[in-house]
Amino acid sequence: MQQESAALAGRGDTAAAIAELSALIGERLSTAAAVREQHGKDLTWHAGHPPDAVAFARSTEEVARIVAICARHRVPVIAYGTGTSLEGHIEALRGGVTIDLAGMDAILEVNAADLDCRVQAGVTRSRLNAELRDTGLFFPIDPGADASLGGMAATRASGTNAVRYGTMREAVLGLTGVTADGQVGRTGGGARKSAAGYDLTRLFVGSEGTLGIITEVQLRLWGIPEAISAAACSFASLAGAVDTVIATIQAGVPIARIELLDEVQVRACNRHSGLDLPETPTLFFEFHGSGAGVAEQVEFVGEIAGEHGGAGFRWASRTEERNRLWAARHAAFWACRELRPGAEARATDVCVPISRLAECILATRADIDAEKLLGPIVGHVGDGNFHVTFLIDPNDPGEAERAEAVSDRMVRRALAMGGTCTGEHGVGYGKMAYVEAEHPEGVVLMRKLKRALDPDDILNPGKVIRLD
Amino acid sequence: MQQESAALAGRGDTAAAIAELSALIGERLSTAAAVREQHGKDLTWHAGHPPDAVAFARSTEEVARIVAICARHRVPVIAYGTGTSLEGHIEALRGGVTIDLAGMDAILEVNAADLDCRVQAGVTRSRLNAELRDTGLFFPIDPGADASLGGMAATRASGTNAVRYGTMREAVLGLTGVTADGQVGRTGGGARKSAAGYDLTRLFVGSEGTLGIITEVQLRLWGIPEAISAAACSFASLAGAVDTVIATIQAGVPIARIELLDEVQVRACNRHSGLDLPETPTLFFEFHGSGAGVAEQVEFVGEIAGEHGGAGFRWASRTEERNRLWAARHAAFWACRELRPGAEARATDVCVPISRLAECILATRADIDAEKLLGPIVGHVGDGNFHVTFLIDPNDPGEAERAEAVSDRMVRRALAMGGTCTGEHGVGYGKMAYVEAEHPEGVVLMRKLKRALDPDDILNPGKVIRLD
Repeated sequence: MQQESAALAGRGDTAAAIAELSALIGERLSTAAAVREQHGKDLTWHAGHPPDAVAFARSTEEVARIVAICARHRVPVIAYGTGTSLEGHIEALRGGVTIDLAGMDAILEVNAADLDCRVQAGVTRSRLNAELRDTGLFFPIDPGADASLGGMAATRASGTNAVRYGTMREAVLGLTGVTADGQVGRTGGGARKSAAGYDLTRLFVGSEGTLGIITEVQLRLWGIPEAISAAACSFASLAGAVDTVIATIQAGVPIARIELLDEVQVRACNRHSGLDLPETPTLFFEFHGSGAGVAEQVEFVGEIAGEHGGAGFRWASRTEERNRLWAARHAAFWACRELRPGAEARATDVCVPISRLAECILATRADIDAEKLLGPIVGHVGDGNFHVTFLIDPNDPGEAERAEAVSDRMVRRALAMGGTCTGEHGVGYGKMAYVEAEHPEGVVLMRKLKRALDPDDILNPGKVIRLD
Repeated sequence: MQQESAALAGRGDTAAAIAELSALIGERLSTAAAVREQHGKDLTWHAGHPPDAVAFARSTEEVARIVAICARHRVPVIAYGTGTSLEGHIEALRGGVTIDLAGMDAILEVNAADLDCRVQAGVTRSRLNAELRDTGLFFPIDPGADASLGGMAATRASGTNAVRYGTMREAVLGLTGVTADGQVGRTGGGARKSAAGYDLTRLFVGSEGTLGIITEVQLRLWGIPEAISAAACSFASLAGAVDTVIATIQAGVPIARIELLDEVQVRACNRHSGLDLPETPTLFFEFHGSGAGVAEQVEFVGEIAGEHGGAGFRWASRTEERNRLWAARHAAFWACRELRPGAEARATDVCVPISRLAECILATRADIDAEKLLGPIVGHVGDGNFHVTFLIDPNDPGEAERAEAVSDRMVRRALAMGGTCTGEHGVGYGKMAYVEAEHPEGVVLMRKLKRALDPDDILNPGKVIRLD
């Protein structure tokens, strides 16, 4: 893919675009090497491709003007939130201008009565929740990183609460965006449901900046539950833990979070976050509801866990203990990195029908072990979604190759089981070939949509789908 | 709009297409006047435009062949399920071939462990639920009519359970469809979430047969709740009933159904369905959950209703009583028709943010009364969605005009409140102008999408958006 990048770069008149942008936003346009480098690489192993310039935008109208300039000069435009994506989403494969939206961090409306809010794209999920604290409401979608809400919409992010609250697909009620011709448009609205035309909101959610640049999002909010209980439960075997998840979901328990950490991941989290959990496959649970409702769920799931070799719940009943548990879960990626200092971390992502989850995880674990690789497994298993974080010696090409092969087999296994090549990390350019394998007819339509909305291919080119 | 139809009809070679189709499916292609008439008119007042022929399809592959023939001759193709839409969705405005999918009624898979199923487009919602009865699962989306699941997907239908279970937007996990060039494609899959490319499933859901013809749908299922309680509650005023709904939703009660019938609608239902409810504004409730969970919800909502002038719950505790209550609710449209025999029924549909619901309903009621029209109000008010069914003397043009004007003001009122011109009935051709008012920038994109996927405009032409 890097050859492609070199081959196709520089089709437009980048210098002219930069000159005009500079006149428009002054010192908020940077061509400094350090700024460009930082904006050209996300959190994974992908190589990194810096843009030619970075524009720090302050408003939707400004984004529209920037895009219009780039469009006129046929220069690529890449939207950038916090740079925490994992498949090379924000790399400037063909150069161009990255628009950094972090400065667009205003919370525009909180409509407590309608359980929704509208924010600029640069607001992060933790910032939104901090601002909501006094309203009794919260926003549940929580990928590992403290990502921007615009970026989360663009990648159709989810996280630990998705099993109960859904993903960005369900949480985004509408959005404001800039299209490839520099026009501003708004989709969705305040109504909870609508049958008024094509679902543009859902088309832009998950399009990774290739169909438009999301500058504002209207988000669904939820009331903070009356009662919340969290617990960890250790299992004798990975199979016992996974089967507990499957039985819980199949019984229709409205569980809020049900997360798996295998023994290697538990070890990493114990070290990184100062937990003292037994180093065996472990589930983290969280129950939301009324007092009585939570008690019912706890009893029911406790029985299921017991039947599958669970060693009883270790409660995190106080808020601080609960926060500590989930902070450890959210730091799983960083904990993995510390497990082997100096190693390169490669995070993978698949999602399968829940009925195939045990089989898929166990086969993947066996494959990792057979290849003698270090790769903790962690997952939002209530959705059938799990990750391996491979920790690879950068000086051993054989190790990287073996990890690549295990990762490839993991994706193909998931596809063969009726699953998807990415539950939440998205496509970027790292998973483009798998999207074709997963949706052989769909990519034909996706190409038509991309060409219709971005005929010059200036919006985040080289991502999501190949335009052959 | 009818002029347009006449002007644009007959662009393609209909006779040649019919000859080829006849050779393909023999007597399952009909040009009989009665069959064409029946397929050219839905349930409302729209005039009706019969197609030139009706093809009764038996498989996805056959639909693909039919579309390919029509595409070659540039002849319009209209998908037809049960003909129960309300905005002229299935009218052959420019002639062409209607594909009747009712014969594609196979339930292909029920994956109890994954809480999903896959059915052909012609299976109706009640048939699916009858087949599911022994599995402990159910499919909750329930528009008034016993519509086909393909048609429900195509119109983004919802119904009384949407406040808890969502609409077809959430319920459709994937689909098989035929595109304008006669190709078969499949979207979505068995994973509960995916970030693998553009959301084609959501693009086709609600596209009303204008982007492709849905031939199979994969649907999410839910476990039948352990406990279900239903009740009706009469209110002294419409405001009290609506405020009860708003307070219930804002408190985050996971209510399954909360439906409003105004006094005129209650009278209609009493007569049609043999109920004996006081003829005042009334809410129908249904609570789903565990025994203790339902008891909690009932107590809480009972208090809210009491504070807003509710006269206490009349319980429908036995299954038969509960079914009678909901059968009456589903028959509301038919009950309205009987309220004024010989009258024409015009059903409207708007949805607003819940915070504006009371204001919107009360202003609409006042407008109906000021114009001395008969128009019961009924609604899925938990979503902010409500309907007026105008009962109009077909021999009094003044009455029809006044109803049209009230309906127009109702939609514009909803839009001014941040709502939508249709919560669930869809656009057809009856609401095209309002989609433009609601999404002035969005329709520009919708046109690009339509042209990209159906460049010759053969799929249900003249619906959803004007292609100016």
